[in-house]
Amino acid sequence: MPALNLKSEFADADDLETQMAAIGRRARAAARQMALATAQTKDVALRTIAERIRQTSREILRENARDVAAAKASGQSAALIDRLTLDEARLAGIADAVEKIGALPDPVGRQLAAFERPNGLLIERIAVPLGVIGVIFESRPNVTADAGALCLKAGNAAILRAGSDSHRSAMAIARAMSEGLTAAGLPADAIQIVPTRDRAAVGAMLTGLAGCIDVIVPRGGRSLVERVQAEARVPVFAHLDGICHVYVAAGADLGMARTILLNSKMRRTGICGAAETLLVDRACAGTHLTPLVTALLDAGCGVRGDEAVRAVDPRVSPASDEDWRTEYLDAIISARVVDGLDAAIEHIEANGSHHTDAIITEDQVEAMRFLAEVDSAIVTHNASTQFADGGEFGFGAEIGIATGRMHARGPVGIEQLTTFKYRVHGNGQTRP
Amino acid sequence: MPALNLKSEFADADDLETQMAAIGRRARAAARQMALATAQTKDVALRTIAERIRQTSREILRENARDVAAAKASGQSAALIDRLTLDEARLAGIADAVEKIGALPDPVGRQLAAFERPNGLLIERIAVPLGVIGVIFESRPNVTADAGALCLKAGNAAILRAGSDSHRSAMAIARAMSEGLTAAGLPADAIQIVPTRDRAAVGAMLTGLAGCIDVIVPRGGRSLVERVQAEARVPVFAHLDGICHVYVAAGADLGMARTILLNSKMRRTGICGAAETLLVDRACAGTHLTPLVTALLDAGCGVRGDEAVRAVDPRVSPASDEDWRTEYLDAIISARVVDGLDAAIEHIEANGSHHTDAIITEDQVEAMRFLAEVDSAIVTHNASTQFADGGEFGFGAEIGIATGRMHARGPVGIEQLTTFKYRVHGNGQTRP
Repeated sequence: MPALNLKSEFADADDLETQMAAIGRRARAAARQMALATAQTKDVALRTIAERIRQTSREILRENARDVAAAKASGQSAALIDRLTLDEARLAGIADAVEKIGALPDPVGRQLAAFERPNGLLIERIAVPLGVIGVIFESRPNVTADAGALCLKAGNAAILRAGSDSHRSAMAIARAMSEGLTAAGLPADAIQIVPTRDRAAVGAMLTGLAGCIDVIVPRGGRSLVERVQAEARVPVFAHLDGICHVYVAAGADLGMARTILLNSKMRRTGICGAAETLLVDRACAGTHLTPLVTALLDAGCGVRGDEAVRAVDPRVSPASDEDWRTEYLDAIISARVVDGLDAAIEHIEANGSHHTDAIITEDQVEAMRFLAEVDSAIVTHNASTQFADGGEFGFGAEIGIATGRMHARGPVGIEQLTTFKYRVHGNGQTRP
Repeated sequence: MPALNLKSEFADADDLETQMAAIGRRARAAARQMALATAQTKDVALRTIAERIRQTSREILRENARDVAAAKASGQSAALIDRLTLDEARLAGIADAVEKIGALPDPVGRQLAAFERPNGLLIERIAVPLGVIGVIFESRPNVTADAGALCLKAGNAAILRAGSDSHRSAMAIARAMSEGLTAAGLPADAIQIVPTRDRAAVGAMLTGLAGCIDVIVPRGGRSLVERVQAEARVPVFAHLDGICHVYVAAGADLGMARTILLNSKMRRTGICGAAETLLVDRACAGTHLTPLVTALLDAGCGVRGDEAVRAVDPRVSPASDEDWRTEYLDAIISARVVDGLDAAIEHIEANGSHHTDAIITEDQVEAMRFLAEVDSAIVTHNASTQFADGGEFGFGAEIGIATGRMHARGPVGIEQLTTFKYRVHGNGQTRP
């Protein structure tokens, strides 16, 4: 575990570059071995990792306590300290999640397509691992285990870069992961933690480490994702914003609209699948707008509305143009009345973030048009936007949600952490 | 057809930037309409384009003759002039290819997966167009029609940038394409030609035109691909090299090995799927090496070999280390003897380009190991490397071959020019 043994920070930039390059080369070599690992071997590794996390919980919690103390001393926010803090229950949850990932079906080796050509060639498209996945995260120490386990399950190598706040916790969890890999006969380098808090390490990862990183997954706030998307020279699986809409169409059942709207906005306000804007069809505004807005206000949600929405209740404040493009991640919603489906779609395309958008209606034609024309990774009909989640999709777990169009879109689970190759089976065919 | 009406070059860099941004915006708007076009509408457009190419062949050939005259006057190579030159037969082939693409099944709207969740949600993964595809090509005027037609068929908008040598030919063909789009009621902006020979236009495309280009496809020589891969800030479908290997294993049938080797190397030497290196297992070198090397030499292929290969025939010249990493694209092959399958795989992983590699053997176990462990987009068993082609794969046509790992790998056909979205069908579900 050479990467894990480097406890000190690098002396200078040259050192950093050299060490990062070495991490990249080790990851690439490990990825070749991982790609050939059987489902059983990977599952042994994951079960062992879960056990080791449980067995070394005292050590992990001690390291985490040091992280938390340092974060408090440096005046970090209560929200960050909450995200950073582990306890017995959270750590047990981390171990359980690793075990659950182990129990998922192996995504590697699936036959995605097969076709026989007139000349007798049999061509198969077979799922293979993506290669080396770089994960850059901030304060949540569970990402070490979650992301590492997902990469491992899909036969990839992972290079994990923890935020400086969670560095000690991440290193402690990574030790358990290395032990699990070794116990299964897999290369410990398949999951490496960048052993420095130097922010330049992130820059090095974003260059792809000379072809040794195939994709970057940022896990953290907007500023991290923005930097990664701006600077990465390799593909990125990410979403910058989750500006999700609930469109209540003329054909909506009011009770269902209210329930789905409240769930979409208020179940958890801080997740990317939380609704940020309510659109109500003018054709049903007379009957639906007041009960919907009142329900939001009564549930403790701030409402920023256009003129029609403000007319409903004096508690509604005016929405500015910026509100339509704001991801509040809080108990606030923007709301407006629109002139039917086309206007709703226009609003979403002009202001949304191609993440998750919902229509509520009993009119199937309208619903089908919304699902076809709204260009988002996830479009829902009569279902909460908060279903935007790999677990809810049945993927078992996710490494994130992508709003890019390439390769992975929506929840990124183990299937999306694979690519494919073509195997061509012949018996002497030549091309005429 | 605003883009096509701009016949003069831009006055200065600001103009270029402004005009390229406008092309990007028009493409994005057209892409939204294209995504909703029915299969029938797209096929009408493609049939009309084929007809218009045939009907305006005199005009296209006249413009092409001007390109050819200019290329000759500026002293371009005979090879470039051959690639550039159209005649009646080649133009008829271009029209036929467009018609054939029209006849392919629509890749948009396919249900790629569907799963019902325990809460009753039905989740579908549906193929949708990628969006806007930027194609940067050099001297072959047929790329205008081929690439444009493939993008159209998959519901995308295309921005095509012709090399300055083929600019007039490309504009003439693009006119036919605009007319076909318009005749079908589709936006003419769905296929735009960059109306300038200014090389800075390529730079602008590589930035993605402020999010208006989703993927870049370079079609041309190594230096073009290298520049695109180095500078692009958006995903790229491409291959830099096709350093394809034929590995003749101990279990190979000699006759089959000879036939496949000759086809892999000599059928056409200038294509990316042509073999560049022969590897022969030491275990069969005694019987197989001399006939294989002699067959190559007798077919007019230059052979650069290691010591064992040089011992076969005085016509073999010595191979340098560089030869193992050289794509000759010519009647030259590098050849060496290796110590069995592991050494062959090592050689390919160290020197290859992850494009297409073949094993010749009757030993199924050895074949399966090769197919699993060689990390290339295409791996073949007892079949020529020259099958690396979308047409040969049954894709109808291809826009190129990709050796990257993300999204598209191997031949890039219309299916690879789509992405997907999730449609979630509920009846009031909320997330607990």
